[in-house]
Amino acid sequence: MRNIRLVISYDGSDFHGWQTQPGKRTVQQTLEEALLPLTGGQRVRVNASGRTDAGVHAIGQVVNFLTTAKHEPAVFVRALNVNLPDDVSVRAADEVAVDFCANRSALSKIYRYLIYDGDTPDPFLRKYAYRCPFRLDHQRMRQAARALLGTHDFHSFETDWPNRASSVRTMMRISVNRVGDYLWIDAEADGFLYNMMRAIAGTLIQVGRGYWPVERVAEILRVKDRREAGPTAPPQGLYLLRVKYAC
Amino acid sequence: MRNIRLVISYDGSDFHGWQTQPGKRTVQQTLEEALLPLTGGQRVRVNASGRTDAGVHAIGQVVNFLTTAKHEPAVFVRALNVNLPDDVSVRAADEVAVDFCANRSALSKIYRYLIYDGDTPDPFLRKYAYRCPFRLDHQRMRQAARALLGTHDFHSFETDWPNRASSVRTMMRISVNRVGDYLWIDAEADGFLYNMMRAIAGTLIQVGRGYWPVERVAEILRVKDRREAGPTAPPQGLYLLRVKYAC
Repeated sequence: MRNIRLVISYDGSDFHGWQTQPGKRTVQQTLEEALLPLTGGQRVRVNASGRTDAGVHAIGQVVNFLTTAKHEPAVFVRALNVNLPDDVSVRAADEVAVDFCANRSALSKIYRYLIYDGDTPDPFLRKYAYRCPFRLDHQRMRQAARALLGTHDFHSFETDWPNRASSVRTMMRISVNRVGDYLWIDAEADGFLYNMMRAIAGTLIQVGRGYWPVERVAEILRVKDRREAGPTAPPQGLYLLRVKYAC
Repeated sequence: MRNIRLVISYDGSDFHGWQTQPGKRTVQQTLEEALLPLTGGQRVRVNASGRTDAGVHAIGQVVNFLTTAKHEPAVFVRALNVNLPDDVSVRAADEVAVDFCANRSALSKIYRYLIYDGDTPDPFLRKYAYRCPFRLDHQRMRQAARALLGTHDFHSFETDWPNRASSVRTMMRISVNRVGDYLWIDAEADGFLYNMMRAIAGTLIQVGRGYWPVERVAEILRVKDRREAGPTAPPQGLYLLRVKYAC
């Protein structure tokens, strides 16, 4: 058995997220179907570094699958890109150790949340950013985000997910930047809870519009209550940028 | 009568171009319908600086219309953006002299043609750039483009349009730039013939891929024969960036 790793990119607009669901168009199912001609018609199960929800985009999602197929990694890239629809693309492939798992082997993930707060709508970003109706103070957001750095119980930023053993995660980097009417929050953590990045974005937006003080974020972490944080920001602003591994 | 000028932006993907055509979704018709509630139900005819074809995008298309409606320009912006679908947006409005015409008063127009020549498809640009299957030498393209500067008969770069009195135009600026796998051609001229920018892009691509020598562009201009130039590049790479006026 060989273990093949792929870096994939997808426009999440027309997918019901990553995970296979009966009767829905998902990235997982689309990819598994595109693999069929390469594995002699044998269905392989593809693991992702993490599930993305409907409407969420990926620049560098990482997946892996076990196969007996003997193709060079570059052949997987070329052939999959011929078989795949044009809203999902394989950017790279390599062969990894059999015990590599895109999810469990990940050291960290980097997400970006993109916000547009211009006065008039930008038709090119309607599916690719959250249009915020308030002008945001990105310096206040940046200041507030600092409270999230380090190891914390992020339960206040998690949509309940009963299977989770622990909601403690380590946030290694978080930044807020602006160019013109476009702002983005970049966050790197050793793991993200369900909807965590979108709850962080929704919370920082409340600070950025002046509705909450900068200090509120530390308080939200402390109380471990999802109701205290901001709303879950819409999916179309979220991008899985990169997943890091030891090798 | 008042003359109102709008700067509009649209994602051309789901439009059959600018001009009203029976049974087709066009930008002109969409805009004229969005104006109805602002003009007491009276249909106004909107003139554009130029027609854009199906799939062609606009960042700064300029249009004007005559109306007796008494709203402030800012009210047109806000109300139209409420009425319009989210793939077209009004970025600005002002009142201009009654003899202003978005088309005839234009001093120059700036178009951009965006090309992606990376090894693997970019799912986010499938409707927003031309994916070129060849790696392009943008420095050769830049050199070749210089032949287009100045006043020339651009008949070789025009899809036949029987009504044209003259195909002489003045190209004020043309540049070719690259960042990573993305290249763009920016061109400013006092007017563009039908499909001219796409024929220029298709021609420079032939030079960039090494199929034609740099000197070929001057020769194509000289012979005034459309068959000598490159193919009309696909619409999704083309953007009307800006239209300049004396005021």
